[in-house]
Amino acid sequence: MKRTAFFVSDGTGITAETLGHSLLSQFDKIELQLLTRPYINRIDKAQLLVEQINEAGKRDGVRPLVFETIVDPEISNTLKQSDGFIINIFSTFISSLETELATKATGSVGKTHSISNNYVDRIDAINFALDNDDGSRTRFYDRADIILVGVSRSGKTPSCLYMAMQYGIKAANYPLTEEDMEKRTLPEPLKDFKNNLFGLTIDVDRLVAIRNERRSNSKYASYAQCQFEIQEAEALFQRENIPFVNSTHYSVEEIAAKILATQNLNRRF
Amino acid sequence: MKRTAFFVSDGTGITAETLGHSLLSQFDKIELQLLTRPYINRIDKAQLLVEQINEAGKRDGVRPLVFETIVDPEISNTLKQSDGFIINIFSTFISSLETELATKATGSVGKTHSISNNYVDRIDAINFALDNDDGSRTRFYDRADIILVGVSRSGKTPSCLYMAMQYGIKAANYPLTEEDMEKRTLPEPLKDFKNNLFGLTIDVDRLVAIRNERRSNSKYASYAQCQFEIQEAEALFQRENIPFVNSTHYSVEEIAAKILATQNLNRRF
Repeated sequence: MKRTAFFVSDGTGITAETLGHSLLSQFDKIELQLLTRPYINRIDKAQLLVEQINEAGKRDGVRPLVFETIVDPEISNTLKQSDGFIINIFSTFISSLETELATKATGSVGKTHSISNNYVDRIDAINFALDNDDGSRTRFYDRADIILVGVSRSGKTPSCLYMAMQYGIKAANYPLTEEDMEKRTLPEPLKDFKNNLFGLTIDVDRLVAIRNERRSNSKYASYAQCQFEIQEAEALFQRENIPFVNSTHYSVEEIAAKILATQNLNRRF
Repeated sequence: MKRTAFFVSDGTGITAETLGHSLLSQFDKIELQLLTRPYINRIDKAQLLVEQINEAGKRDGVRPLVFETIVDPEISNTLKQSDGFIINIFSTFISSLETELATKATGSVGKTHSISNNYVDRIDAINFALDNDDGSRTRFYDRADIILVGVSRSGKTPSCLYMAMQYGIKAANYPLTEEDMEKRTLPEPLKDFKNNLFGLTIDVDRLVAIRNERRSNSKYASYAQCQFEIQEAEALFQRENIPFVNSTHYSVEEIAAKILATQNLNRRF
């Protein structure tokens, strides 16, 4: 039996999606179709959505779940007229927060992810990650909050971009080259920044698969080469006391959270 | 009066942060210090955190807010012994979901943002955004879910990267050049993909400021040049019926959500 879950918001839908996914991940045996409906900021849009919810319920033979973060009570009440099982995320918490903070909620719509003074920090951080990616430029490492180190295709770039996007952290990354491996010392551009280094490693099989997608049947993508590089990289991390994680077993969200926790880095916004 | 808010999780803390920020954005007059505490997955870590919460309360003279998504009841109960005002996000919803779904929650920790089969889609999408950024390569536009069009520095790259990271959407972007402006037709590489184009525009003052950071006092960063380019870009969008948004007034989250809604694009995971 398949069931539909709607994530409904008067803004981007990110809060409804994030909490909804989080809660539903606790019910992994239920087969779900997930639908996000952002910008439900008018009664007529809510009425159309009520029809969609009711149709999904008829099709599935079971009422849909509706996770919603609508601020306007009239729009929220319109949704309540649907056949869905409504999880009203905001109203559940807002009144107890109003009491605790002894202040009325402003009731303003779409505030969470709207533009603010974090804009510049964030764009700066994204540009920093792009400009200092993959060892392309090492002369601004003194401005980096963190420098990720690892073999080619171990997950450095996505992790740097995520930290920039989500936390405004300036993250550079340095790919260990074969030359670096042979020298068996910390590469020259990294020597002054030992406290800001964080290593990424990866399982050999995963690395072989990823590299084969880029350059299939090359030495670069061969099992022996991948194994050698990973061994040397991990040996370097251990020798130099560089904290590291294995990107095979973690999402970029988890890698980023682990780096922040380990390095005592705080988000910039 | 300043107040501390803790976002506490046994995983990355993203759900607690997202919902917490969302709720607190409804109380914009309260001055807050926001602290995220991820990976509180053992009693001893929770006990240390209880001390931090109590210290913050003493320092502020008012009890901290604690938004938490801890799955393990024993760890969650440890937090309850603090002086904080606890908002237990999971337990608030899990039991009614258990009833509705007629299934017990699995109680597994850190499931939401853990690695899954979306990993490959996501990395592919990020690589696609990087490889097809800024008109560097246009021959794979047929594989793009969306192609963002706009003048240099109008916010295309961050928007593409965000769509890739968050939704697994393959987003390319094409910068309108001065040559394109003078021709006053849709640039050649875009002609076959009219239904997948989405425009970004930006306020002149903002563009001048951003370009000056990159190349100060250049013609590229001059008010006249920026104004000319923006006018021509907007005229192109209108002439060719390309939907567009002004990136000055929206965050990347909002731009991405608007693009998905307008283009009827669905997230890939």
